[in-house]
Amino acid sequence: MITIYNFNHGVRGIRVAWQCEEMGLAYNPVGFNFPVPAEFRAKHPLGVLPFLEDEGGVAVGESVAQMLYITQRYGPTPLLPIEPAAMARVLQLTVASEASLGGLMNPMMGTKFAAPADLKSNWTDGYCHARVTEVLGYVEGVLGEREYLVGDGLSLADLAISTALGVWQGALGQQVPPGLAAHRKRMQARPTYQKAVTAFGVE
Amino acid sequence: MITIYNFNHGVRGIRVAWQCEEMGLAYNPVGFNFPVPAEFRAKHPLGVLPFLEDEGGVAVGESVAQMLYITQRYGPTPLLPIEPAAMARVLQLTVASEASLGGLMNPMMGTKFAAPADLKSNWTDGYCHARVTEVLGYVEGVLGEREYLVGDGLSLADLAISTALGVWQGALGQQVPPGLAAHRKRMQARPTYQKAVTAFGVE
Repeated sequence: MITIYNFNHGVRGIRVAWQCEEMGLAYNPVGFNFPVPAEFRAKHPLGVLPFLEDEGGVAVGESVAQMLYITQRYGPTPLLPIEPAAMARVLQLTVASEASLGGLMNPMMGTKFAAPADLKSNWTDGYCHARVTEVLGYVEGVLGEREYLVGDGLSLADLAISTALGVWQGALGQQVPPGLAAHRKRMQARPTYQKAVTAFGVE
Repeated sequence: MITIYNFNHGVRGIRVAWQCEEMGLAYNPVGFNFPVPAEFRAKHPLGVLPFLEDEGGVAVGESVAQMLYITQRYGPTPLLPIEPAAMARVLQLTVASEASLGGLMNPMMGTKFAAPADLKSNWTDGYCHARVTEVLGYVEGVLGEREYLVGDGLSLADLAISTALGVWQGALGQQVPPGLAAHRKRMQARPTYQKAVTAFGVE
């Protein structure tokens, strides 16, 4: 069975558990409070979460990779459409949720929570903020007036992007553009999302 | 046919062209010098490269997504193994090449090339440097003494990681750990890599 290790309030692990809920896959959620226990590094030397284990010796980090792994091993699923243009767009936005959004939020998180007070405001942090803002504007344009990010059904892109916004709005306290905020609310209203959140004991 | 838009010296587009060479897929390389022409934003509002177009209305950014798209549409390919543990590891490292490496190199690139001289050295830039260094150490450990990053054959992980090192060493002028530097040399010696590089007119 799939085991998902996650911070109790970690949106990136919820992303993966939520996908399991959508696909009807059983999983074992293991929640940690920050920081992860030292023993965890025996599983994953980087010590970052979420981390996924599965039968056959599967043991990997990177939430987006975990989503793609589940899709490849347990799909096909409508979460990754077969039609090429839709499939490519879903992959683009799913990858972008970390490569162009989450990956730039991490240095901002580090800065917010670990930098000395007089060093928090700096050029590179401002660059990350500007770049994330630009990408969010682009993604909001892709969404337009539609309910889902790609086509007329839920996809990995909706799961990946709406959870990335959790870091932006929650941990970083930033503004989410209105179209994406409404999309996020719709996503959070799904029973599958709520089950994934409560699986890790978050209220 | 696949069209790949890339900067003439852009390693991220070479990543995608190289995959086409490995899979024996024809592609049309379109190289730009920096900055991209204003008209390009009609294709991709973010104006970033590489950008991929293909039959059926496919038009997407994000090099890692492009690699996965090609794999899904034109595979199966040994570049993404079927065996679950290997498949998951390939996905992890391929995603990590941007989510945990390239995504942190971008703010460093912005800082190096666009920040005023007295603002280049700052806490957040240092955070990115430390984090990339930590992830590279981890990836070097995954490689160990083997020829390829996963199993005993070339995979998307080798293509994605070795090109990410091109940003680290080339544009950013940073040190690549010796094991990964040797891996990168082996990758660059492949005729398929060299064909991809020259496709964009780079010497």
